[in-house]
Amino acid sequence: MRQAGRSLPEYRELRAGVGMLESCFDPELVCEITLQPVRRHGVDAAILFSDIVVPLKAAGIDLDIVAGVGPVIAHPVRTVQDVRALPRLRHEEVGAIAEGVRLLVGELGDTPLIGFAGAPFTLASYLVEGGPSRNHERTKAMMLGAPDTWHALMGALTDIAVEFLRAQLTAGVDAIQLFDSWAGALSLAQYREFVLPHSERVFAEIGDGVPRIHFGVGTGELLGAMGEAGADVVGVDWRVPLTDAVRRVGPGKTLQGNLDPATLFAGPQVVEREVRRIAREADEAIALGAAGHIFNLGHGVLPDTDPGVITATVELIHSLPSPL
Amino acid sequence: MRQAGRSLPEYRELRAGVGMLESCFDPELVCEITLQPVRRHGVDAAILFSDIVVPLKAAGIDLDIVAGVGPVIAHPVRTVQDVRALPRLRHEEVGAIAEGVRLLVGELGDTPLIGFAGAPFTLASYLVEGGPSRNHERTKAMMLGAPDTWHALMGALTDIAVEFLRAQLTAGVDAIQLFDSWAGALSLAQYREFVLPHSERVFAEIGDGVPRIHFGVGTGELLGAMGEAGADVVGVDWRVPLTDAVRRVGPGKTLQGNLDPATLFAGPQVVEREVRRIAREADEAIALGAAGHIFNLGHGVLPDTDPGVITATVELIHSLPSPL
Repeated sequence: MRQAGRSLPEYRELRAGVGMLESCFDPELVCEITLQPVRRHGVDAAILFSDIVVPLKAAGIDLDIVAGVGPVIAHPVRTVQDVRALPRLRHEEVGAIAEGVRLLVGELGDTPLIGFAGAPFTLASYLVEGGPSRNHERTKAMMLGAPDTWHALMGALTDIAVEFLRAQLTAGVDAIQLFDSWAGALSLAQYREFVLPHSERVFAEIGDGVPRIHFGVGTGELLGAMGEAGADVVGVDWRVPLTDAVRRVGPGKTLQGNLDPATLFAGPQVVEREVRRIAREADEAIALGAAGHIFNLGHGVLPDTDPGVITATVELIHSLPSPL
Repeated sequence: MRQAGRSLPEYRELRAGVGMLESCFDPELVCEITLQPVRRHGVDAAILFSDIVVPLKAAGIDLDIVAGVGPVIAHPVRTVQDVRALPRLRHEEVGAIAEGVRLLVGELGDTPLIGFAGAPFTLASYLVEGGPSRNHERTKAMMLGAPDTWHALMGALTDIAVEFLRAQLTAGVDAIQLFDSWAGALSLAQYREFVLPHSERVFAEIGDGVPRIHFGVGTGELLGAMGEAGADVVGVDWRVPLTDAVRRVGPGKTLQGNLDPATLFAGPQVVEREVRRIAREADEAIALGAAGHIFNLGHGVLPDTDPGVITATVELIHSLPSPL
């Protein structure tokens, strides 16, 4: 479960007075924050604590993560000159993250560790808008109005994402997740023309040595195309039943999801009913050709979630017969 | 085009120092702000300047619209007692809005005026969360965990929406739009069980004396159900091509949309290409059974949009052969 840490008091204690970027570049903190939800909830895998913009920061782009706002880019990327001036990410620049991974591999024992990177489109939106954006209008303006500049930008960001994931793989992660937070803002035609070729290249360059997960939110219209990008696992948010998702993604892929994170606020009976419904739909999806199912939320853990409810939900899921 | 006013310098001038709620309850301002984009852009219909929470404020609920935040509810609605304590909206409480409509009818001549109300679910989310919410977790917790309380709340809000629309109809609007801003946060199953019956009642109580438009954003999964709610026109955002939308909504409904508002930032060639594409898809949608097409953006006008681009886009659309 992504972002499971942020609902934990021990996480808030550890982060008190420590900036988000500072914590992402501190190997000991990366290790400890990644371990906290694994210890608490007994989940089946750990997901590396990091942030979408960490590889951009590592590459030397002037940015900060401002509490209550999100990433703020000092000099937004708007022109072909801005794109040409983008730095490449060198292996040694993410040494602290790789060191965090190595510490984790030592601590986790048999629990697999999932590495993490933001997909090129989401990175591009932060860079072009200068921060989080609801409507991505400058990003889409570049995409639609200056496609050569756009593809050059996406090419540079694809290289950065690949390098960031390779550093994690070299350090020992067991799987990778490419997270396209904002892809759901696009139509299918926009996604296919301007995003898919780059996300495809990320997965192709990583290769099939480890399981590769691809995830977005509000991407119901895009599931087929996201399935084509080359991942082994496609994340599904709560808006699309797994039985529909398998038809869109096509056979042979594992589906991940898709409990609505808000369900965890609705009491144990609702949680149990919804967990059992998703388990049933996962069985049906497998009968329809899905390669498997990874039970997860349909999005990150919401910050006000009661950690006890998360633990109980994980126990409930573990008590169900495995769909595989 | 919804919210076309907010990109206009004459709107900003008129609103300088005047609060949002204050302007929504001032008949002269409602009239003038509604007319501004009609004068500027020569659009085919006016849409009443108002806000989703205006009927709640009119009914006596303690709330304010805070610049940069949105509506803030002094006492969020969380319990069955809170729901029972909700006021009803009386006709005379929206007298200022009705007066604004009467002024507009006098000014607009042959240009039709579209009335406006927020749908029960969107009103409920503001009341339960206490303001705008990204994840609607408290709203969904009530919906899933306390369905009786939820349906009582939705019943009260349905009454308020109906009364607000009736006041506008009595004053002379030519059509109404029910706007469900946040419905896209729901799965189809959640929408069908907890929202659709109430939106249906809004349309049933308004009756078929005027054209009724139903609109949401990110509602691709819900288009079929939203079509069943009883409106004559279903709004479609840019994520779903009109040729797909007609299949989801079913035949006999008019489709409204669906130019991505971000397109207006991408230069005149892109705007022309996209406008022509949508016109072609609208023709195809009509061939597939849609009753007609209302050209519009797929969402409200973005505040930084160049008003000149909007005017040019309206001229371009008017130059195309009518699909009807």
